[in-house]
Amino acid sequence: MEVTIVGAGLVGCLLACYLARRGHHVTLYERRPDPRERGPDRGRSINLAISQRGIDALRRLGLDGKALHAALPMAGRMMHAPGGALSFQPYSADRSQAINSIGRAALNRELLEAATAQPGVEVRFGCRLTGLDERTGRLRFESGEEAEAGVVIGADGAYSAVRARLQQLPGVSFSQEYLDYGYKELSIPARNGAYVLDPGALHIWPRGRSMMIALPNPDRSFTCTLFWPHSTLDSLDTPQRIRAYFAEHYRDAFGLMPDLIPDFQGNPIGHLVTMRCAPWHARIGDVAVGLIGDAAHAIVPFYGQGANCGFEDCVELDRCLDEAGDDFPRALELFERRKSDTDVIARLALDNFVEMRDKVGSRLFLAGKRLEHALERALPGYVSRYELVSFSTTPYSQVERRVARQRGIVVAAAGAALAALAFAARRGRGLVRTPEAD
Amino acid sequence: MEVTIVGAGLVGCLLACYLARRGHHVTLYERRPDPRERGPDRGRSINLAISQRGIDALRRLGLDGKALHAALPMAGRMMHAPGGALSFQPYSADRSQAINSIGRAALNRELLEAATAQPGVEVRFGCRLTGLDERTGRLRFESGEEAEAGVVIGADGAYSAVRARLQQLPGVSFSQEYLDYGYKELSIPARNGAYVLDPGALHIWPRGRSMMIALPNPDRSFTCTLFWPHSTLDSLDTPQRIRAYFAEHYRDAFGLMPDLIPDFQGNPIGHLVTMRCAPWHARIGDVAVGLIGDAAHAIVPFYGQGANCGFEDCVELDRCLDEAGDDFPRALELFERRKSDTDVIARLALDNFVEMRDKVGSRLFLAGKRLEHALERALPGYVSRYELVSFSTTPYSQVERRVARQRGIVVAAAGAALAALAFAARRGRGLVRTPEAD
Repeated sequence: MEVTIVGAGLVGCLLACYLARRGHHVTLYERRPDPRERGPDRGRSINLAISQRGIDALRRLGLDGKALHAALPMAGRMMHAPGGALSFQPYSADRSQAINSIGRAALNRELLEAATAQPGVEVRFGCRLTGLDERTGRLRFESGEEAEAGVVIGADGAYSAVRARLQQLPGVSFSQEYLDYGYKELSIPARNGAYVLDPGALHIWPRGRSMMIALPNPDRSFTCTLFWPHSTLDSLDTPQRIRAYFAEHYRDAFGLMPDLIPDFQGNPIGHLVTMRCAPWHARIGDVAVGLIGDAAHAIVPFYGQGANCGFEDCVELDRCLDEAGDDFPRALELFERRKSDTDVIARLALDNFVEMRDKVGSRLFLAGKRLEHALERALPGYVSRYELVSFSTTPYSQVERRVARQRGIVVAAAGAALAALAFAARRGRGLVRTPEAD
Repeated sequence: MEVTIVGAGLVGCLLACYLARRGHHVTLYERRPDPRERGPDRGRSINLAISQRGIDALRRLGLDGKALHAALPMAGRMMHAPGGALSFQPYSADRSQAINSIGRAALNRELLEAATAQPGVEVRFGCRLTGLDERTGRLRFESGEEAEAGVVIGADGAYSAVRARLQQLPGVSFSQEYLDYGYKELSIPARNGAYVLDPGALHIWPRGRSMMIALPNPDRSFTCTLFWPHSTLDSLDTPQRIRAYFAEHYRDAFGLMPDLIPDFQGNPIGHLVTMRCAPWHARIGDVAVGLIGDAAHAIVPFYGQGANCGFEDCVELDRCLDEAGDDFPRALELFERRKSDTDVIARLALDNFVEMRDKVGSRLFLAGKRLEHALERALPGYVSRYELVSFSTTPYSQVERRVARQRGIVVAAAGAALAALAFAARRGRGLVRTPEAD
């Protein structure tokens, strides 16, 4: 089968590898130039945290070792209090589990190499999709070039051109929801060739309504990202104001950011959007059109699951092709079942922003986390929501059910423990006569 | 001020009248040809039911008499049971209130005449907007024509080109939600120059998951509209199947539709969509851009409020211009407060579909309506939700609060009545000693 994938980003490249393994011919059209021939985008991309779902999707093709060789494991959150005090919260009870910091550009290059190394995969750069003919389904590109395909899969990200075309079809529901927050990248460079913060943690400066995070890079720098209300970002309009604000709210980081002023003033403000679309597939002319990854369901980055979810999409679509005997229209129809999972992670990602920027700094929350880890050790089979999302491949839609079930068990166990304590206390005060006392 | 309105439909024309009264120069750009020079669109437009909000908006400009001279008052719903039995449900307790059936094309022509009769209003037909320059805000049309404006207001309907441009701005949230239903127009012609159904009612054939409605026209015909699941619409693919289905489910209407087969096979299927957008205004280049009517908040037609709501938008924008001293950017900002109202009517319109197609046919619902009308007569100030929406200009967002408050009073009154009844019954049985009995 001749398959066209629009977008040679992370998901497009991985999907090409999956389809090539099935024996399909794949042409990838990418609007940007070849990333192997240009420098990295500056300040436009949050570092990724690849966890179990992403690793699993890579591993099924034997790509995990090569694609993640530069990744840095982060075994927990390092919280930075306003005064500079640090506290570490491991992601798992036994501290054995880690999410993996890697730059988007580096991972994309590895996956591009992997895709182009497959027989039957071709990548065309500098091709921006501008149209999909209503009658014939022919693809039109900005360059004037045209192309034909029996199957078109949009892996072209949150602002997908393929989805924009689908949205014009009657019956295609769609939403884009922006948070009233922007993000901006800053940098903490290495000092004397060494990390100035622990590279084994994801650093968070929770500040209630806003926050900063930092993820380690192989060159011993950290990429920092501010997640601030637009009003705060806009209000720091002079070097004096920027310096004063950081000195007050991010005291420990402020001293580690020699390029703060040019970074803050020069780097663009990114936006935080959740995109939902239903259905993800349609027939346009004779062409079966589908969506995958961010094009189908862009989510905010606060659970570190955007790329992981997109990679898992590839595994699921591969499974649907198995079930459909490589009949793409049928497989794209089956793939709609994935929406029950992506809807859940979209919501969890939004919820986690509140947790990261606000709750992780509170003592009550920390006590809750310690209790949760104690339960994990005490109750066999208890796994936290974070672990189910990040360190398992349990479908997202089942994570919530399992968390609810566990909560029921915990409440019952706590009730039993309280009853036992009460019993012991009464016995101690002679209120309960025990057989021995009789 | 030079104001550009995109779309010379109902709301665009009425807004032009409001702005002309304020002394502004208005150019209306309409993608279709002049409707006064072409025949009516066939089968694409539900008859409108103009009620209090629409009448009020027209009356403020003295347009109500002329614009609504051909309208036919409908004082209630006439329910058609599957067996053909009829039952009439008045819209108001005293049967004095009516909604007014009028064809969209007729009303549009009247408003177009009214707008072009204003000094300073110009209408350009056959101008389809294709772009709004990011830097300068210049408008580009399909014809190659360009135009400049300080203010651009999109009154270009559910599939607004102006909104499509706004949606590309970061931070503009948007959703389009389709029902899994289509609509299709049919016709019940006059017989011997007379109406074959009561022209003083909105006719409904509620059939559980689907329904048909019919509204009277001045030529003594009725325009019928099916609201059916797409699966049902698609399943009637032969004249035999169409006839058999109507004979079974719409027995009384079937005999009144001589053109059923060509209408059903020839008329297009319309779609039912709810569009939401936030914010409705932005600055593009030097231009203040805003949305109004369906372009800002397209709703499904089941409360008969689409046009009424759009007309009321014009009144509200006029009020905002009063408050802002005709500073358009400021007025468009103030106009965002209207969203709290349009969100409510969007939801009520969706809810009312269930009521119309399903509940209005049930005995329990009818008993409830009779009780509601009895309450209206018994409790001073009690007004049903339907009446507040259709026969008042109470802001939509206050309708729900008032309905909730009334429900509290009714429950209290019912409680008091029951207590009184119980007291009387006990007394009758000698369980309560009354002073007289002592």
